[in-house]
Amino acid sequence: MDFISNNNGHLLSKMATNDGHGEKSPYFDGWKAYDSDPYHSTKNPNGIIQMGLAENELSFDLVQEWVVNNPNASICTAEGANEFKEIAIFQDYHGLPEFRKGVANFMGKVRGDRARFDPDRIVMSGGATGAHEMLTFCLADPGDAFLVPTPYYPGFDRDLRWRTGVQIVPVVCESSNNFKITKEALESAFQGAKESNIRIKGLLITNPSNPLGTVLDRDTLKTLVTFINQKNIHLICDEIYAATVFNQPDFISIAEIIEEEDQRNCNRDLIHIVYSLSKDMGFPGFRIGIVYSYNDAVTNCARKMSSFGLVSTQTQHLIGSLLSDDVFVEKFLVESAERLAKRHEKFTKGLAQVGIGSLKSNAGLFIWMDLRRLLKEPTVDAETVLWKIIIHEVKLNISPGSSFHCSEPGWFRVCFANMDDEAVKIALRRIWNFVLQSSKGVEEHAKRKCRNLQLSLSFRRRDDIVMAPHMMSPHSPIPSPLVRAT
Amino acid sequence: MDFISNNNGHLLSKMATNDGHGEKSPYFDGWKAYDSDPYHSTKNPNGIIQMGLAENELSFDLVQEWVVNNPNASICTAEGANEFKEIAIFQDYHGLPEFRKGVANFMGKVRGDRARFDPDRIVMSGGATGAHEMLTFCLADPGDAFLVPTPYYPGFDRDLRWRTGVQIVPVVCESSNNFKITKEALESAFQGAKESNIRIKGLLITNPSNPLGTVLDRDTLKTLVTFINQKNIHLICDEIYAATVFNQPDFISIAEIIEEEDQRNCNRDLIHIVYSLSKDMGFPGFRIGIVYSYNDAVTNCARKMSSFGLVSTQTQHLIGSLLSDDVFVEKFLVESAERLAKRHEKFTKGLAQVGIGSLKSNAGLFIWMDLRRLLKEPTVDAETVLWKIIIHEVKLNISPGSSFHCSEPGWFRVCFANMDDEAVKIALRRIWNFVLQSSKGVEEHAKRKCRNLQLSLSFRRRDDIVMAPHMMSPHSPIPSPLVRAT
Repeated sequence: MDFISNNNGHLLSKMATNDGHGEKSPYFDGWKAYDSDPYHSTKNPNGIIQMGLAENELSFDLVQEWVVNNPNASICTAEGANEFKEIAIFQDYHGLPEFRKGVANFMGKVRGDRARFDPDRIVMSGGATGAHEMLTFCLADPGDAFLVPTPYYPGFDRDLRWRTGVQIVPVVCESSNNFKITKEALESAFQGAKESNIRIKGLLITNPSNPLGTVLDRDTLKTLVTFINQKNIHLICDEIYAATVFNQPDFISIAEIIEEEDQRNCNRDLIHIVYSLSKDMGFPGFRIGIVYSYNDAVTNCARKMSSFGLVSTQTQHLIGSLLSDDVFVEKFLVESAERLAKRHEKFTKGLAQVGIGSLKSNAGLFIWMDLRRLLKEPTVDAETVLWKIIIHEVKLNISPGSSFHCSEPGWFRVCFANMDDEAVKIALRRIWNFVLQSSKGVEEHAKRKCRNLQLSLSFRRRDDIVMAPHMMSPHSPIPSPLVRAT
Repeated sequence: MDFISNNNGHLLSKMATNDGHGEKSPYFDGWKAYDSDPYHSTKNPNGIIQMGLAENELSFDLVQEWVVNNPNASICTAEGANEFKEIAIFQDYHGLPEFRKGVANFMGKVRGDRARFDPDRIVMSGGATGAHEMLTFCLADPGDAFLVPTPYYPGFDRDLRWRTGVQIVPVVCESSNNFKITKEALESAFQGAKESNIRIKGLLITNPSNPLGTVLDRDTLKTLVTFINQKNIHLICDEIYAATVFNQPDFISIAEIIEEEDQRNCNRDLIHIVYSLSKDMGFPGFRIGIVYSYNDAVTNCARKMSSFGLVSTQTQHLIGSLLSDDVFVEKFLVESAERLAKRHEKFTKGLAQVGIGSLKSNAGLFIWMDLRRLLKEPTVDAETVLWKIIIHEVKLNISPGSSFHCSEPGWFRVCFANMDDEAVKIALRRIWNFVLQSSKGVEEHAKRKCRNLQLSLSFRRRDDIVMAPHMMSPHSPIPSPLVRAT
C-alpha cells in the first residue's frame, strides 16, 4: 500500500504546526543554552549559570525538616501507608477537603490574614500555567483579547493564546514611570483595540510583578478596579509571588481591595485570582495551580475544566497537612522572606560595585537589571547582541527584556534565588569581569575615537534605580572580541 | 458606580456557558445520586452502592507493601527526604528520566514484552482525560471530527470536543455482532461524514473496550490499520485497560501490530497510544496520563502542551521506582489479573442466578449487562425509566447504555472492582430481590392480562451472552409500584 501523503502539515492541526507555543523566544533559548552546558561547581565550573529560572530554593531545609517530622502526612511512610489506597483512588475534581482547606489557609496567611479565602472556591489546575489557560477558556472566545501590562511573563503568550485562540493586547509601561500601570496607558490600549475591532474581555496583572519584582500600591489597584468595572471586563490577578515580598511596602492582594470595596463599586463577578505554590513555596514540580474566582459560574466551569490538569492526590494529601500547620506556615513565611531579602541585597550590592543598576524592588525571585548603557544602540537587536554575549561568553543565562515584551531595550531579568551562595559569588565575579573588560573596551574605544572627549562612566542617579559609584557610559560600544565571538 | 451588566452569559465565553462539558448525562447524574446517599456497611447500609465508577481497588495491598518496604522511593521518608528539594523543583516537561523509563518498562511488561516502548516518547498528561484532549488539539482543527465506535466512554464527549471544537462521528456497532467494529460500519460512518462535509481526522478506539470489557482480535486490528491508512487518518488507541485482561484471549496492543507490520503497509506517523495508570494500577488520583505517539511532530507538540497538565514530580519519583522494579511489576500483573478474574466470575455467576446475562468479556473493571428484557419497550426512554428505578429503588448506581451512545436500549455498564466482597454480596442480593420482584410483577401482570398465555421466562440462548437458567420475558412490564416511585 502506498501512502496518500506523509505530510504532517496536512495531517496535524494548525495548532500543532504553527509556533503558538511561544518557545521560539530568547527566554526559552536561554534555557536550552544552559541545558547544553550547565554550570556545576566541580563537574563543569565553566558552564553556564542558570539565572533565567525563577526558582525559590532558599528555604527547603525548613520543608524537609517538617516532612521528616510528620510522617503521617505522606502515604509512603509506615505511619501513613494505610491511607495509600484511599488517597490513590480519590479523583473527585473538588479535591481533597484537607487540601482545599490548607491552601485557603495558606493564601490567607501569606496576605497577613487581611483577606479570607473560602476552601469551596479553591479550584485546582496544572500549575499557574494551567490556571491561566483555564481562566482564558472560561472568560474569552477565540479572537477576543486580554490587556496585559508590559513587561510581562513570556509564558503568557502560550498560556493565554496558544490553545484558546485569544489575543494579548499590551499595555505599554515605561521606565520613566518605574513601569507603573497608569489609567492613561490602560485607556490607550483599550481604545486601540476597539479601533481594531478587537473585543477586550479582561485585564491580566501580575502582583508582585514578574519580571519587575515590585508590588502594586493601593491607588493603582483601585484604579484598576475602577477601570475594569467601567469597561465591564474581567480582572485577573496573578499573585503567585505573594509570599516573596521581602521588604516594605507590604503586599496588597486584590482580595483585600474587594473586601474593603463597597460592592456597588466593584462587581465581584469580574475578579479572579491565579495562585500557585511554585514560587512561594518553591514546588514547581508539584504542579499546584489554583484558580480562585469570586464568580460562581467561573468557579463551576473552571472546576469542570480542571479534570484536564488536577493535582496528584499524593501531593494534595501532603500539601493539605503542610499548609494546615500554622506554626510551620508562619515560621516559613518569615524565614523565607528574610532569606530572600538577604540574597537580594547581596546580589544588588554586588552588581552595584561595578555600576550595574536595577529597578528598585521588594519582591520576587529576580531583579530587573538595567544594562541600557551597555547597548551599542537602543534597539532590540543591540539588546539581543548583548544577551548573546552574556549567555555565551559571560556564561550567565539571564533573560532579555524583549522576551518580556518590554518596550525599552536594555533591561534583563536576573534570577537570584535558584542557586547557592557559592554560585552567586561566581555569577557576580563573572559580571564584574565582564563589566570591567567592557569598561576597558569602552575606554580604549573612546580613546581611539575621540581622544579629547572624557567619557563619564556614571549613570545619572535616579531613586528608582539601585546605583553604584562606578558606572558605564551611555550606549557604550561592546568590545569587539566579544561581539565577534557570538 | 452602577454595573453595565451582570450578565454572565455575555461576560463569559461560549465554552463556559454551553453544556459542552458533557456532565448533563445519566453517567454523571448517577455519580451525583450516589454522592447524596452513599452506601456504607455500617453508617449507611441502605445507601446507594457505587457501581458506576471503573476503579480497580483489588490489589492495593501489594502496592502498600512495596511502598513501606521501599522508603527510598518517597521524598517524604527519612530515607528519601534528602531528595525532596531536587524533586520538588524539577519542572522539565520531559519528566524525570526514571519516571519515563519506569512507565516505558511497565507498558512493555503489560503487553507481555511483545512490544517495546521508548522512554523518550513518553509524554505526560493529566490522566487519560488530558491525554485525549492533547492529542485532539494536536491532530484536528475545530469542526473536524473523529470516528468513535459505539458504545463508547461518555467522557470522550468532553475530552475530544469541549475545548477543542472537534466533533465525534459515531461508528455504530451492534449486539447482533457482539459490538464488533466492522469495515462496513467504518466505511458507512466515514462516507456519512463526507456527505455532510465533515472532515474526519482520525479513528479512536478503546482496547480493551470501555464499556464492553472485550479485547480486539488481530483481524480487527489489522482491518483498522488498513482502513486508517487508506483514508490517511489517525488511529488513536486508548489502551488504559491493557493490564485488566484476566482471561483468554490475550490482549494485543496496536504496538505489536505495527511492529509486525511492514512499514509500507502502515504509516507509523498515524498511530498514537493513550495510556494511564488509573485503571491498570488503580491510581486515578495520581493523574498519570501518557501520550505515546509514533509521530515525532506529535510527540514534540504534545510535550509542549503537557505544560498544562504535568504529573507531580513527587508522584513521578515514586512511580519511577515502583515501575522499574520488575519483581514487583510481574507479581502485581499476575495477581491483579487473577483477582479480577475471580471477581468477574463471582459477579457474572451471581447475576446469572437470577437470569441476568451480560456480554461475554475478559477484561476491564465492569460488565456490559443485558437488561433488554426488562424494558417496557425497546426505547431510550424505557431504559431511562429502568435506570432510575435501579438507582433510586434498587439503590445501585449503574450506567445506562444511552450514556455510552449505545444504539440499542437495555444495556448497562456495571463496575465490579471498586468494592469489597461484602459490598458485592449486598449488590447481588439487591439485584436478585429486584429481579424476583419484577418477575412476580411480570407474572401477575401476565396472569391478569392474558390468562391463557404462558410466558416463557427464558432468554433465547446465545454464546456471546453469559446466561442463566431462570430468565425474564421479553420487554416485560416493570411492576407499577417501582415505576411510580421514581
